[in-house]
Amino acid sequence: MKFNNTESYLSQNFDLESYFAAKTNIIKNELAKIINNSNVSGHLLKAMKYSLMSEGKRIRPVLCIASAESAGGKETDVLPAACAIEIIHTYSLIHDDLPAIDNDVLRRGKPTCHAAFNEATAILAGDALLTLAFQVLSSVELQNSSNALKWLKIIHSISTAAGYMGMIEGQMRDIASENSQISLNELEELHSLKTGELIIASVESGAILANASSDQITQLNIYANKIGLAFQIADDLLNVKGDPTITGKPVGTDNARKKSTYPSLLGIVESENYAKKLIKEALHALALFDNKSDPLRAIALYIIERKR
Amino acid sequence: MKFNNTESYLSQNFDLESYFAAKTNIIKNELAKIINNSNVSGHLLKAMKYSLMSEGKRIRPVLCIASAESAGGKETDVLPAACAIEIIHTYSLIHDDLPAIDNDVLRRGKPTCHAAFNEATAILAGDALLTLAFQVLSSVELQNSSNALKWLKIIHSISTAAGYMGMIEGQMRDIASENSQISLNELEELHSLKTGELIIASVESGAILANASSDQITQLNIYANKIGLAFQIADDLLNVKGDPTITGKPVGTDNARKKSTYPSLLGIVESENYAKKLIKEALHALALFDNKSDPLRAIALYIIERKR
Repeated sequence: MKFNNTESYLSQNFDLESYFAAKTNIIKNELAKIINNSNVSGHLLKAMKYSLMSEGKRIRPVLCIASAESAGGKETDVLPAACAIEIIHTYSLIHDDLPAIDNDVLRRGKPTCHAAFNEATAILAGDALLTLAFQVLSSVELQNSSNALKWLKIIHSISTAAGYMGMIEGQMRDIASENSQISLNELEELHSLKTGELIIASVESGAILANASSDQITQLNIYANKIGLAFQIADDLLNVKGDPTITGKPVGTDNARKKSTYPSLLGIVESENYAKKLIKEALHALALFDNKSDPLRAIALYIIERKR
Repeated sequence: MKFNNTESYLSQNFDLESYFAAKTNIIKNELAKIINNSNVSGHLLKAMKYSLMSEGKRIRPVLCIASAESAGGKETDVLPAACAIEIIHTYSLIHDDLPAIDNDVLRRGKPTCHAAFNEATAILAGDALLTLAFQVLSSVELQNSSNALKWLKIIHSISTAAGYMGMIEGQMRDIASENSQISLNELEELHSLKTGELIIASVESGAILANASSDQITQLNIYANKIGLAFQIADDLLNVKGDPTITGKPVGTDNARKKSTYPSLLGIVESENYAKKLIKEALHALALFDNKSDPLRAIALYIIERKR
């Protein structure tokens, strides 16, 4: 969908494509370093690498870095947090795809982990990635207590967002909502839990590590909340009218599963309008930030314009 | 099996049963507080509680507390670490029992999580417990940076022990070893990974939080390593000659699965002798500790004498 950019939100001609290419490259290298940094060889690590190093959008770690930059921080300061969040996201995809849950055999155009390996390996690879995230988050600054508290705060923020009060409860509700009609409010809560909380934690982690003020953190959280919902609406729309050769995912699966989605509850046009409204609010939340927030602004616009 | 207690390791008539009853009660109350401390209600939390609050041995959290006490620490200081480790242990049992892994329907005399709920719920309840452990470990001392570094170290120690270089790799090897003969060395490495590392982390966490000296930590780690192996040998022996009405687990399943075990590789008598030798070495490792280590000494003796 096209965002009607009547107000000039970007203070310059910001090139999101180059920004993403540069950041995802750094993230990919760091993830490779993390996953290769061990003597363990064999089946388990192969399955972990298979999923972690496949071509994802890397939107959460980029958000983490962009949020830190907004508040004047450097990407090197937040790289472990950015990677840990991507590792958690990857584990959640592996487990969501399992036969007992979504039973998806294709992800990002490639066989899912359990399809490429087997179910037991996929369960354990997911467990191992989730655990690895906390190993990464606790590997930094061990010689120095001044930053330890900040990292502890981030571990708390991320584990809360990813746990039974966040992402996993959302996934549970998602399963329960199959073949049953839920209200728009229930759908919104479901998505806030399932994807919103971890997106907020991504942005918040970057901000905390960049020593953002509490005002800045509040505004960044509003931004993250809005784009998180818009991201899900865009996902739902791609499941209706996306191009599977671009998305790498089959189309129409939500409908076949009789899942409640934004398009099924609101219709396509209303869903698009709602997503645009959320993005506008997200951009307004960044009003107090200078042009160091252009990456965040551009990401907000990208979220509803993306084709995959 | 009976330990031939020719040397007097316990400096007084230490009553392990009362000690365990007192500590497991404290741990149970704390776990209940952790798991009830939320607004979330529903299926997911019910499954988490079902497994977490079932009657386990709680040996890891008791070891964590006993280790801290050895070094002069207090149980209140280490309770979050003790509980987090029990939470991780519980998640690992839920996932190990899954149809795609061990396919066990009975645990501690009760239906396993996936048998009582369903497979999707058991996968997610396990994920949620693993995540909760890190939420618990990062919930403490957030107002105070002096202890933050210690907790960060513990998160690192526990996540390393529970992850792809520890417990999960051990579980992976355990699956691979079914229906295939492995050597005693391979079996030992498998168990060090699968159960040993987390037992070491339990003892180490308690020691770190109690400000133990590095000498003390080294000795406690030797102790933990030895009792961890002895614990597994005892488990293997219970699978051969345990009483299912006491263990709550069916007998002979290892043999039916053609799993390599200590009894299958060494025979029953040699396995018992090996376990006794390990316990003797564990007790020697505590030589520099005073009678505050009696709980650890008694636990070592209990490990090979236990009936469940």
